[in-house]
Amino acid sequence: MPDAHTNSTSSNQFGAGVDLHLELAGSRRRAGLTDALRDAVRQGRLTPGTRLPASRALAADLGVSRSTVTECYSQLIAEGWLTAQQGSGTRVSQRANPRSTTVETQASRVLRRPTHGLLPGAADFAEFPRTQWLAAARRALITAPHSAFGYGDPLGRIELRAALADYLSRVRGVYAEPERIVICSGFHHGLTLVAQALKEQGAQAIAVEAYGLSLYRALLNDVGLRIPPLVVDENGARTCDLGAMRDVSAVLLTPAHQFPTGVALSPQRRASVLDWARTTDGLILEDDYDGEFRYDRKPIGALQGLDPDRVLYFGTASKSLAPALRVAWIVVPKNLLSLIAEAKGRVETVSALEQLTLAEFITSGAFDRHVRSRRQSYRRRRDDLVTALKQTAPTVRVTGMAAGLQAVLELPQGTESWVLQAAANKGLMVSGMGEFRHPMLDRHFTAQDALVVNYSAVSDSAWEGALHALCSVMP
Amino acid sequence: MPDAHTNSTSSNQFGAGVDLHLELAGSRRRAGLTDALRDAVRQGRLTPGTRLPASRALAADLGVSRSTVTECYSQLIAEGWLTAQQGSGTRVSQRANPRSTTVETQASRVLRRPTHGLLPGAADFAEFPRTQWLAAARRALITAPHSAFGYGDPLGRIELRAALADYLSRVRGVYAEPERIVICSGFHHGLTLVAQALKEQGAQAIAVEAYGLSLYRALLNDVGLRIPPLVVDENGARTCDLGAMRDVSAVLLTPAHQFPTGVALSPQRRASVLDWARTTDGLILEDDYDGEFRYDRKPIGALQGLDPDRVLYFGTASKSLAPALRVAWIVVPKNLLSLIAEAKGRVETVSALEQLTLAEFITSGAFDRHVRSRRQSYRRRRDDLVTALKQTAPTVRVTGMAAGLQAVLELPQGTESWVLQAAANKGLMVSGMGEFRHPMLDRHFTAQDALVVNYSAVSDSAWEGALHALCSVMP
Repeated sequence: MPDAHTNSTSSNQFGAGVDLHLELAGSRRRAGLTDALRDAVRQGRLTPGTRLPASRALAADLGVSRSTVTECYSQLIAEGWLTAQQGSGTRVSQRANPRSTTVETQASRVLRRPTHGLLPGAADFAEFPRTQWLAAARRALITAPHSAFGYGDPLGRIELRAALADYLSRVRGVYAEPERIVICSGFHHGLTLVAQALKEQGAQAIAVEAYGLSLYRALLNDVGLRIPPLVVDENGARTCDLGAMRDVSAVLLTPAHQFPTGVALSPQRRASVLDWARTTDGLILEDDYDGEFRYDRKPIGALQGLDPDRVLYFGTASKSLAPALRVAWIVVPKNLLSLIAEAKGRVETVSALEQLTLAEFITSGAFDRHVRSRRQSYRRRRDDLVTALKQTAPTVRVTGMAAGLQAVLELPQGTESWVLQAAANKGLMVSGMGEFRHPMLDRHFTAQDALVVNYSAVSDSAWEGALHALCSVMP
Repeated sequence: MPDAHTNSTSSNQFGAGVDLHLELAGSRRRAGLTDALRDAVRQGRLTPGTRLPASRALAADLGVSRSTVTECYSQLIAEGWLTAQQGSGTRVSQRANPRSTTVETQASRVLRRPTHGLLPGAADFAEFPRTQWLAAARRALITAPHSAFGYGDPLGRIELRAALADYLSRVRGVYAEPERIVICSGFHHGLTLVAQALKEQGAQAIAVEAYGLSLYRALLNDVGLRIPPLVVDENGARTCDLGAMRDVSAVLLTPAHQFPTGVALSPQRRASVLDWARTTDGLILEDDYDGEFRYDRKPIGALQGLDPDRVLYFGTASKSLAPALRVAWIVVPKNLLSLIAEAKGRVETVSALEQLTLAEFITSGAFDRHVRSRRQSYRRRRDDLVTALKQTAPTVRVTGMAAGLQAVLELPQGTESWVLQAAANKGLMVSGMGEFRHPMLDRHFTAQDALVVNYSAVSDSAWEGALHALCSVMP
């Protein structure tokens, strides 16, 4: 309202004329005045102790009713911005803190991105099926019962658990009744729940593969568990060594496609880990992070199918769809359900709307179609990589190629850090095998120097450049 | 394929004829055979040790190529379902466990619902704005950058934090820069993070209101914190008693609308808690669970605005939209950000797509419109309740009515449990004040017997019946 703007009295009194002008429009006059005064105090234009004009005077200044001003004052007194003492009128509260004016700029939070990123965890997010996902979300929202909007089953929506039970038994050979499936927000969350549950049961140690993500080793340590390493060779983790380990109540494995070496757990090793679990009453935690992606033949079925009461199966939508969904699942033995549900009770569950959308996405067949098309595209990437390396670096051996999203490029011993540095200089971010090494691994165990290349990490348009940069730094 | 179906040899050999018939179609012949054999083992129709026919014989039986059979066998050997010894041919593995056939029925998991539920936490979920939410989801999905589908900022999407910063300062008087806001999945999750962070800092005790949800008292206990009670009277929690408490580093309050009593924290009590925080370097945890819903005048602004460096502000979408979204937010002092981010690192973040949808829902104005319409409808409910009680139970005093989603019906001393029982007999679920009482509250402190009625808990169609049932059990 212009008269507030042009009214020098009120402007001088508060130095808040502009705010008043901005705020005091139409029906929101009282609200506008209240906000204007609050801002004036917050921004330090009205300092603690300052006496405010009498309601009648201010009302006249601003051309609003006196009751508007008195209501506004009492509101701010109720909130603690102003105080009213008999005789001394209305003043700015001594307790009202002017706000600090230091505000981080957006810019300061942005990280500089490398030119080419081929690190684990990334994926070609340009390929997220936005249209099909939205269609699934629409169908899910339209058909959801009212009750779906309340507090849900801590184990997850039954619709999603049923859809996953079908999918997992069909595609991964998992023995999964809906009642055994627990929905969680990512593998990290799922492993946290299971680790807490096992700790609750008195577990002291969980054996882990000697090569893997340090993030998960740290997680298990945080829960208070020891994590003795299992050496990984061309047949996968040496599960045959489990028998010799003390107080180990579970083992965390990536049987279908060891991360990061890419080898599959051999039939003998599968047999021996099952034997270990049965003779020692141990548990197997099967991390099936990218089981959908196998190129040489049908994916190797999940270990869980062989003994659903000894194996906890972990799957995730992060690799097949996108990490942004924060949806993953665990198939657990019946006798562990209540413990895991209790652990989950300490943190909240996944959005019911998203769970219903994913259920719809799976049952409609869109998930199968998406995975198939991603598999084809990743297979092309893998072939590009092999061909390009044959031409430019024929001495470099490429392994771990039968499946998944990453390949291992074996390097001459002692050259790993040198190659990583050369890559960094070209703005190429790749991982060296060394960064996945378990700290407790025997010093005398000399690992193969190698790069771990996630060829699914970039968009099609960026792939060629990344591949070129990669070849250019090979010895 | 019919020939497999009609082929008695193969059917008899495995008792799996039907499966084979179902599976062995078109291009999926090998996959079909593999699945058929796996199922036959899993279901115990092929028992451990059973010798399988030679690949040539089976290929002839089924009318498929021999390579199809050998590939299928080697696949199942790799998975551990079958074993191959020199001379003894291919056998079912001794380790393959037939599946248990006990499957919980859906029915056994369904709980019987009461006829009328007026318990805290429930809401009129029929009113969730499905269409507008879907429209926001569409806009969010279409405009999201590719990077949004990756692993996100553990503190939450900047788009949502910016939208909330505007909304909270406009509607709740919160001083909220986006950089101070942490997105979490529900108040429970947020309080867990903060409690862990304070514990990390060496906190021993957090004072809580003498009446509140036991769930949150248990949460704080789980983290290892003592929870001394603050008596609640007609001016809210007696924050003036904080000075006398030992080793209390924070206090959890519901200042705008105490839960469950419904009183607002008086200006004096607001002042004294701020003084306590400043003199003892303490922190105030402000649970603003239903601050949007106030009927007598503009909502009382948040305490946080008075001292953003001493107050952690908790808000949630559970009351204003739906618990199913699992989205809430904390506005925290800068010096606590890293600790809380670290605590959050242990559990996963909220879906980025849902965060972007909520950001869109807020910035488009749909959130304001939804809250306004809910407020009107809840106000009508409150008026219905008052009118109905005036007529049927004039002696019952109704309090805590100025705001929020629940009302307190004061009962003659000693009648609370009797009334609750009478209500239960009529299928009416309401809470008694007793269930919110802090266990450590002084025995000599006699509380007012009362019902806590969540009048937002049912749909419009069910409201009249619930109200009638409620009136009928009043003394």
